Amino acid sequence: MALGIGDDAALVNPSPNSQLVVATDTLVESVHFPVDASAEQIATRALCVNLSDMAAMGATPRWFTLALTLEKADAPWLAGFSRGLAQVAAEFDIALIGGDTTAGPLTISLTLIGEVPMGETLPRGGAKVGDSIYVTGTLGDGAAALSLLMSNDKDGSSDSERLLTRFYRPHPQIQVGIKLRGIANACVDISDGLLADLAHLCRASAVSANLISERLPIHPDVKRSSPLLCLDWALFGGDDYQLCFTVPHDNCTTINQWIELGELDATMIGQIQPLEGDKFPIRVDNVATELKRGFDHFDD
Amino acid sequence: MALGIGDDAALVNPSPNSQLVVATDTLVESVHFPVDASAEQIATRALCVNLSDMAAMGATPRWFTLALTLEKADAPWLAGFSRGLAQVAAEFDIALIGGDTTAGPLTISLTLIGEVPMGETLPRGGAKVGDSIYVTGTLGDGAAALSLLMSNDKDGSSDSERLLTRFYRPHPQIQVGIKLRGIANACVDISDGLLADLAHLCRASAVSANLISERLPIHPDVKRSSPLLCLDWALFGGDDYQLCFTVPHDNCTTINQWIELGELDATMIGQIQPLEGDKFPIRVDNVATELKRGFDHFDD
Repeated sequence: MALGIGDDAALVNPSPNSQLVVATDTLVESVHFPVDASAEQIATRALCVNLSDMAAMGATPRWFTLALTLEKADAPWLAGFSRGLAQVAAEFDIALIGGDTTAGPLTISLTLIGEVPMGETLPRGGAKVGDSIYVTGTLGDGAAALSLLMSNDKDGSSDSERLLTRFYRPHPQIQVGIKLRGIANACVDISDGLLADLAHLCRASAVSANLISERLPIHPDVKRSSPLLCLDWALFGGDDYQLCFTVPHDNCTTINQWIELGELDATMIGQIQPLEGDKFPIRVDNVATELKRGFDHFDD
Repeated sequence: MALGIGDDAALVNPSPNSQLVVATDTLVESVHFPVDASAEQIATRALCVNLSDMAAMGATPRWFTLALTLEKADAPWLAGFSRGLAQVAAEFDIALIGGDTTAGPLTISLTLIGEVPMGETLPRGGAKVGDSIYVTGTLGDGAAALSLLMSNDKDGSSDSERLLTRFYRPHPQIQVGIKLRGIANACVDISDGLLADLAHLCRASAVSANLISERLPIHPDVKRSSPLLCLDWALFGGDDYQLCFTVPHDNCTTINQWIELGELDATMIGQIQPLEGDKFPIRVDNVATELKRGFDHFDD
């Protein structure tokens, strides 16, 4: 950073021949996290959610600003919040370059700025008929975590712990996004649910998609603990923060090799098909599927 | 803009050989504006306040993101807010590239990104002993407007109208900031009050300042309506959003010529002097001056 916090604004040096990627996300108490979330959990979740937008663009995150509104300056709370923020910032090598703290109801708004070499971003609108559809990691963890958080049935088991960690510290797929530059045709992150976000991708690309349900990568713990709900969670549940991307036929060999070698944690789950005036652009096992809203509030 | 709202993030192209200037500001209802402010007034004030930070850095503003939290989606309110935002964005040729709207108590957080040619920014810490201190426009208008807003004594006179317009639509000194590149040694915008912000500049530059009270440019209307308070307002009052800058001796001729030709609306108000272990870095008419906090809340 050329000039830090304290001046009227921050001054930073962008890399030559790069484009800037800018994403803003706001988290409000009882909407985006429960009131009993710790300051550290809130901070890590806020930053990881925003980093996931960078991953979906194939961007390298560089800088962020923080607008923090909170009822009163509470030293232990602020220490926890700063610790959470610092941990994630260090892990992803990003710098906090400015911000504003104001008095008011707890709200966290982050703006991240990343970079991508000129012309190498992963757009939503680039999917082509014949592309294979892949998804990273496992699906349904976000919805399972939400269900756990809202049930107040946190039993302290290793499965519960895994899900809560996944919720408060989703793992932004930055390295995957960077790896996919020049390989994938289109990409989104799954924050609203696989079907909702894949539908965004399809609309932006003017194509449709067919998914193969038995290929959906659902975590074995989620499958075992919720055999009836897990497919629903995988398709409609939000908060997974995995990447869904489409790959042209010629590049699938590369992707499949990476998967076999353990260099990429992803699964092929379907194909991009022509749009034939469908009301709903997504089919699952060749059946048109209505979209549900994969979204929940903590104040219901 | 290379790619607009709707993707996971916005994609923009920075100018070659430029540095990025990034500023974040948050406005909260009843803290930064009264509850009876219109949506349009809130929007114009939020954006103008943030643009003023760009002006102080000598930056050309380019893009901004908006994080808007509001109780409920109210179509007339949103229409007014959008209208205010669009007017200011058009006037300063900046593009809204992203944002996030969430449910919650009314809070507006803006992040502006500007550009400045490599190495030509106006830092706070660049003032040198012997520099002349200048201020743009007039002082005390912000404090007079605050006083008017808090007194509920809006009489609809042309003076009241001028002050309210100044409050809700401060005029960011973008063109002055750009004009001062390579001419001024240091610059701040006056949002917390002349003395408070000049003290920031002095501390960052390790210098002190002496101001000449009779040179302070107080608007004749403010002088006439509040002869006892106006000097206090000019020195300590916030919300003026003028620029205070320091100019090395060799460049004062240029500045003074611009002022004479009407190309720059600014006044020389004092000199930068050595720091001699002073507790307070600012003197007025050679008398050390304690800083007051030039800040008011609307919920008092």
